[in-house]
Amino acid sequence: MRILVANVNTTQSMTDSIAEAARAAASPGTEIVGITPHFGADSCEGNFESYLAAIAVMDAVTRYEGEFDAVIQAGYGEHGREGLQELLDVPVVDITEAAASTAMYLGHKYSVVTTLDRAVPLIEDRLKLAGLDARCASVRASGLGVLELEEDPDRAVKEIVSQAEMAVGDDKAEVIVLGCGGMSGLDAQIRECCGVPVVDGVAAAVAVAEGLVRLGLSTSKVRTYARPREKKVIGWPLSAR
Amino acid sequence: MRILVANVNTTQSMTDSIAEAARAAASPGTEIVGITPHFGADSCEGNFESYLAAIAVMDAVTRYEGEFDAVIQAGYGEHGREGLQELLDVPVVDITEAAASTAMYLGHKYSVVTTLDRAVPLIEDRLKLAGLDARCASVRASGLGVLELEEDPDRAVKEIVSQAEMAVGDDKAEVIVLGCGGMSGLDAQIRECCGVPVVDGVAAAVAVAEGLVRLGLSTSKVRTYARPREKKVIGWPLSAR
Amino acid sequence: MRILVANVNTTQSMTDSIAEAARAAASPGTEIVGITPHFGADSCEGNFESYLAAIAVMDAVTRYEGEFDAVIQAGYGEHGREGLQELLDVPVVDITEAAASTAMYLGHKYSVVTTLDRAVPLIEDRLKLAGLDARCASVRASGLGVLELEEDPDRAVKEIVSQAEMAVGDDKAEVIVLGCGGMSGLDAQIRECCGVPVVDGVAAAVAVAEGLVRLGLSTSKVRTYARPREKKVIGWPLSAR
Amino acid sequence: MRILVANVNTTQSMTDSIAEAARAAASPGTEIVGITPHFGADSCEGNFESYLAAIAVMDAVTRYEGEFDAVIQAGYGEHGREGLQELLDVPVVDITEAAASTAMYLGHKYSVVTTLDRAVPLIEDRLKLAGLDARCASVRASGLGVLELEEDPDRAVKEIVSQAEMAVGDDKAEVIVLGCGGMSGLDAQIRECCGVPVVDGVAAAVAVAEGLVRLGLSTSKVRTYARPREKKVIGWPLSAR
Amino acid sequence: MRILVANVNTTQSMTDSIAEAARAAASPGTEIVGITPHFGADSCEGNFESYLAAIAVMDAVTRYEGEFDAVIQAGYGEHGREGLQELLDVPVVDITEAAASTAMYLGHKYSVVTTLDRAVPLIEDRLKLAGLDARCASVRASGLGVLELEEDPDRAVKEIVSQAEMAVGDDKAEVIVLGCGGMSGLDAQIRECCGVPVVDGVAAAVAVAEGLVRLGLSTSKVRTYARPREKKVIGWPLSAR
Amino acid sequence: MRILVANVNTTQSMTDSIAEAARAAASPGTEIVGITPHFGADSCEGNFESYLAAIAVMDAVTRYEGEFDAVIQAGYGEHGREGLQELLDVPVVDITEAAASTAMYLGHKYSVVTTLDRAVPLIEDRLKLAGLDARCASVRASGLGVLELEEDPDRAVKEIVSQAEMAVGDDKAEVIVLGCGGMSGLDAQIRECCGVPVVDGVAAAVAVAEGLVRLGLSTSKVRTYARPREKKVIGWPLSAR
Repeated sequence: MRILVANVNTTQSMTDSIAEAARAAASPGTEIVGITPHFGADSCEGNFESYLAAIAVMDAVTRYEGEFDAVIQAGYGEHGREGLQELLDVPVVDITEAAASTAMYLGHKYSVVTTLDRAVPLIEDRLKLAGLDARCASVRASGLGVLELEEDPDRAVKEIVSQAEMAVGDDKAEVIVLGCGGMSGLDAQIRECCGVPVVDGVAAAVAVAEGLVRLGLSTSKVRTYARPREKKVIGWPLSAR
Repeated sequence: MRILVANVNTTQSMTDSIAEAARAAASPGTEIVGITPHFGADSCEGNFESYLAAIAVMDAVTRYEGEFDAVIQAGYGEHGREGLQELLDVPVVDITEAAASTAMYLGHKYSVVTTLDRAVPLIEDRLKLAGLDARCASVRASGLGVLELEEDPDRAVKEIVSQAEMAVGDDKAEVIVLGCGGMSGLDAQIRECCGVPVVDGVAAAVAVAEGLVRLGLSTSKVRTYARPREKKVIGWPLSAR
Repeated sequence: MRILVANVNTTQSMTDSIAEAARAAASPGTEIVGITPHFGADSCEGNFESYLAAIAVMDAVTRYEGEFDAVIQAGYGEHGREGLQELLDVPVVDITEAAASTAMYLGHKYSVVTTLDRAVPLIEDRLKLAGLDARCASVRASGLGVLELEEDPDRAVKEIVSQAEMAVGDDKAEVIVLGCGGMSGLDAQIRECCGVPVVDGVAAAVAVAEGLVRLGLSTSKVRTYARPREKKVIGWPLSAR
Repeated sequence: MRILVANVNTTQSMTDSIAEAARAAASPGTEIVGITPHFGADSCEGNFESYLAAIAVMDAVTRYEGEFDAVIQAGYGEHGREGLQELLDVPVVDITEAAASTAMYLGHKYSVVTTLDRAVPLIEDRLKLAGLDARCASVRASGLGVLELEEDPDRAVKEIVSQAEMAVGDDKAEVIVLGCGGMSGLDAQIRECCGVPVVDGVAAAVAVAEGLVRLGLSTSKVRTYARPREKKVIGWPLSAR
Repeated sequence: MRILVANVNTTQSMTDSIAEAARAAASPGTEIVGITPHFGADSCEGNFESYLAAIAVMDAVTRYEGEFDAVIQAGYGEHGREGLQELLDVPVVDITEAAASTAMYLGHKYSVVTTLDRAVPLIEDRLKLAGLDARCASVRASGLGVLELEEDPDRAVKEIVSQAEMAVGDDKAEVIVLGCGGMSGLDAQIRECCGVPVVDGVAAAVAVAEGLVRLGLSTSKVRTYARPREKKVIGWPLSAR
Repeated sequence: MRILVANVNTTQSMTDSIAEAARAAASPGTEIVGITPHFGADSCEGNFESYLAAIAVMDAVTRYEGEFDAVIQAGYGEHGREGLQELLDVPVVDITEAAASTAMYLGHKYSVVTTLDRAVPLIEDRLKLAGLDARCASVRASGLGVLELEEDPDRAVKEIVSQAEMAVGDDKAEVIVLGCGGMSGLDAQIRECCGVPVVDGVAAAVAVAEGLVRLGLSTSKVRTYARPREKKVIGWPLSAR
C-alpha cells in the first residue's frame, strides 16, 4: 500500500525526515511518499500558519497525481484534517489523534510535550475537538521553535526530557507524546531518559493508517465528511495559479 | 468607527445583504464595510469550503488598504477566527460566538437553526471550542442550502420557523439563533412566528464589536493570539499572485 | 435610553462610584441611574449576604418609579439575576456574566481576580451556572475585603496586579476580569502593569445592555423567566413594610 | 435529637404535611419541628419566589428560639441552602440533594418528576451546582402546580406515574425522585405503579440529617461556609420589622 | 437490623478493626457482621488485587448463611459494587461513595487522602463512575501501604495530616475523606489537627445503609442491577471448590 | 508475533469464532491463539458475570504457558483490562476501546449496537472510564442475548441493522461499532445494509495490537499499571485449585 505523509510546512528537509521516520515504522510492503505544500510557512507555530497549512495540504494532496491508500497529516495540533476527509475517499490520519489514542492504550494519563508555549492552546483545542482530551494530563512546551529541533537535536532532547519528567512527576502522566512532527526519531532517546513509553505521532499514524487500510475501513460519507457539494470554487486549487 | 464585515464566500450579493443587515444594527457614526474574499466557494457548507474561506478572509482583510476598528467574520460555524486574531490588533468578532453569547443573556437555553444537516457538526464544534455550548439546547438544520435562502426567503422563513418551534417545544430552547450569515434580516419574521427572542449573528456581532471598541478592548497578545513570528511564508498573500 | 445599575450592598458611596464607572462607559444618550438596596449588608462577601442582596435588589428595582430600558446587577458572583429576569420585561445583565463573555472575545482563557478567598466558590458557581466557565483559567482572591478596595486603592491595585500576574504566568490566563463591582475604575492601571486586557464588569455590562436595547432584544418569557404566576405573596415588597 | 424542617412557602398546611412525612421517616427519639416562613409566596414555582423563600427560610430559622441539631430545607430545587450553612453550626440538608444522592445508591440513573415545566431548569441548575447531575437521566414536569398536589392527590399520583413511566422507559431512569416537598407521602403509591424505587426528598433528608448528627459531622467552616463576617446589615432579620 | 461489612482483603485483623469502627457508628439495634474473603490478597493496592477482591467479596457474601438487611463493601476505590447489587436484593453501600456523598453535605469541595500513589487513579475512576467527582478537589496519597496503617498508626496520622493540610491549603478542600478502609478510627485525631470535618467511609456507610433500610429502599431491579439471567456458571461460588 | 485473544465466557465455540475473526484480520506472520476461561458464565451479560470474567481471563492468561506478544480481551464493555495490564509486560488491548478509537478515525460520531439493554450501562461506563465517550452518539441494544447471536445470525443481522439505522438517522452516528465479541464477522453484512463504516472490535483490536508490537510500545509501568507489589495472595491462580 502507498501512504502519503504530508508535512504541514514548506521546509523540504523536514518532509524528508518525517518520511524517513514513517518508513522506519512502516510494515514491509508499505510505500511512504512525503508531500511538501506548495505554499505556506517554513514552520507552523500558530493559527495563521496552521490555517494556511490546512489549505496548502489539501491543495498538495489533491494535486498529487498517483494513487494512494491513506494520508497522514504530519503536523501536531494543526487545523485541516476534516477538510481532507471530505475531499478524499481513503482514510486520513492526523498525528495529533494517532499519538493520543495510541498513548491511551499504554497508561492511565498521557502528556504532550510540544515546541512553543503558543502552540499549547492549539493542541489542547484539537484534542478537545477529537474527544481525546479526557486522559490528557497536560500539554507542555519545551520552548524550542520547530526549526530549532532540527538545528540542535541534543538540546531538543534535553529540553523535552526536562518537560517530560515534570509531566510524569507533577502531572501524573504515564506516557509521553511528542507534540511536533519535527520530533520524529527522538522517541527512543527520550524514552530511555524518562522510563515511560514515548509515542511519536508519525510512527503511530503509520500503524493506524496501515490498520485501517488492512481492515478495509475508511471515512464515513453520510454527513460531516460527505464530498463537498458541486459548486463554483474560485481559484482552486490555489497552487495551480 | 469603521467595522469590516467579512463574508466567508465569494457571492457578492450575499456580502451586500450582510453589510446591509450590519448597517441596520449599527449605531450612528459606525461605518460598515463589506468584504468579499478573492477566492473560495460561492457558499460555505462544509469543512473544505470553510477552511478555504478561513484563509481567504485572512487574505482579504490583510489586503484591505484602509483603516478599521474591528472585524466581523460573518460565517456561522466557520473556521478561521483565531488566525485573524493573530494577524490583527483590532477586535475580531465571529458571528457564531456573538450570537451565542447574546442569546445566553436572554434565556436559559438557546438553539441554533442552520442550513444543511452537514453544517451541524461544524457549528457544534465551534461552540464547543468557544466554550459556549453548555447552554445550547440543540443545533438544527432547516435543510436549505446557503444560496437557497436568498432565492426563496419565504420558504426559508417557513423551514426555519418549523425547526425553531421544535427547538422550543422539544429541546426546551428559550431563544433561537439564526445559524447562517445569509439569514440576516429574517429575525423579525421568525420572532413573530415563534414567540421567543431571535438572535441574528450579524446584528449581534455589530453590537459586540461596537462595545469592545468603545471600551478600548482588543485581543490579548500574550500567548495564543500573539503576532505570527517572523518567518518565510511562501505565496502569501495568496490573492496577490 | 436609561439603564438602572443596582449596587448589591447598602453602601451609598459604592453605588456612586459604580454609577460613575457605568457613566464613563456609556454611549452618549444613555442615562445611568444608580440604585441602592433598602436593606442588606454594607458589603457582600458570602452567601447569606448575597442571598439577602438578591432579594433586596429585586425589591429596590421593582419599587423604582421611573421607566428604564435595562438593569445591570453590579455585584460579582452574586445570586439573584434569574429573579430579576422573571420580574422584568427589559434586559437584565449581571456583571459576572458580562465580564466573562467580554473576556472570551479577547483571549483563549481568562482569570478573575476578586476580593476574599471565600468569594471564590460563589464566583466559580455562578460562572458554571452561566455556562461561561469552560475558558476560565482561575478565580483568584486578592485578600482584600470589598470595603477595603475603596479605602486603599493603591494597595488594591498592588494586590490585584500580584494575583493577575500569577494568573497570566501560572494559570495561562490571557485576559483579567475584575471580580468585584467595587474594583470599577481600576482597570486602566492594572492593564498597564500586567500587559493584558483587563475587563471591568460594570463597563462591560453597560456595553452589553446598550447592545441588547439597540437590537430590541430582551428576556425570553416562554419558560424559565416567565412572569411569576399570580399568587399570594406575604410581605412583598419587603421594604414597603 | 431535634431537626427543624423548613417549608419554603407560607402555606401552613403544607408545613404540616411535610413535618408529618418527616416524622414518619424519623428514628425513635428524633423530634421534628416544622417551620413556616414569615413572608413569601404561598407556593414556590420560580426564581423570584425561590429567592424570596431562601431569605425567608434563613429569617425563620435564625429566629427560631429553641435548640436544634440539624435543619432540612424542604423545597425541591430551591435557592438558599448555602446561606443557611453559613449562618448555622449544625448540618443543613437540602431535600434536592438528599433525594439525589439517595437515589444514586439505588440505580445507575435516576429521574426527577416535579411540578411545573418552569421549575425544571431550577432543579437542573441546583443539581449541577451540587455536582449530583452526572447520573440524572432527566427532570420531568407533571404539569401540576404545587398547591394542586394537595387539592387533588389522585390526579397528582396519576400524572406523576405517567411521567415516571416515560422516565423509566425512554430516559432509562432506574429510580424516581419526587421533585417537590409537597409530594411527600405519595412515594408508596407511585412505587407500586412504576416498579422502581421512589425517593421522597423529605424522608431521604431526615435519614441523611440523622446520620450526620450521629456521626458528629457538620458544615466545614474554613472557607465557603464560614460564618458571615461582622458587618452592618440593615433590616435583618427581615421579619422582625 | 443486621449489616454485613465486607473487608476486601484477607487480613482478619483488618476485618476486625473495620467491624469495630462500623459498630461505633451504628445505631442501637444494628448488628454489624464482619466478612473476610476466602481468597485474595492480604491488602488491595492495585487493579489485579481489587478485581480479585471484587469477586471474593461476592463469593463470601453469597455464601454467608444468615439473613441480613444491607451490605457495606469496605474497600476504598475498589471494583465490584455493581456485581453485589445484581446478586442481592438488599441495599449495597460502597464506602468510596458513602464517604464522598457525605462529604458533599459538609463543604464546597472535598479531598480524599489514600494510601499509595498507585491507588489514586483507581479512586478517581470510581468517583467518576459514581458521578461524585465534580466536587472532588484532589485525591492524595500518604505514601503508606494498607498494612502499614495498622503497624504504625502514629506515622499514619502524621502522613495523612500532612496531605490533608495541603489539600485544604492548596487544593481548596473543605472536607477530608479517609481513602482506605484501614484508616477507620483515625478520623477524630485528623480532624483535630486539620480543623475541617473528616469523613471515615466505614462510619459514613453505616449511616447510609441504616437510612436506606429504615426508608425501605433498595436497589432497583429494572435494568443495570437486575438479577443475573439464568445460565451455566462454571466453578461458582469459587471458594466452594 | 503471537497474540492471545481471550474470550470472556466459557463457551468454546465462541472462542473459536472470535479467534477465526481475529485471524481474518491479522497480518501475515501473526499467530492468533484463542483463550477460554477455566471458570465463569457461558455468556457475559451483566456485572456479576463480567467481574467473574475479569478474574477468569487474568487467571487463564497468566496460566498460559507459551510466549506471546500481546493480549486482546475480546468482551465488549467488560471489566478487567486494567488488571491484565498490571500482570503483563506486553500490550493489552480491550475490544471496547479498540473499536471506539478506530471508529473515531472514520466519522464525527459513532454508535455502539450491543446485545441486551442491561449491557448498555456497562458499555457506557467503560467508554467513560476510557475517555472515549465524547464522540459516542449512543449505545443501543438489539435485544438479543449473547448466545442468540450464534444461534440465529440472520435475525442478529436484522436486529442490529434496525438499531444501526436508528443510530444513523436519529442519533446522528456516522459509524457503527459492533458491541459484542460474538458479533465478529457480521460487519460486512451490516455495512452493506447501513451504508456507513462498521467496526468489529476483534478485528480493530488485532490491528491495534499489531501496531503496538511493531512500534515496540507497551504498558507504562510507572504508576497505575505497575506490577502488583509482592504480597500474600490466597488461592491464586484460582483455577489451579
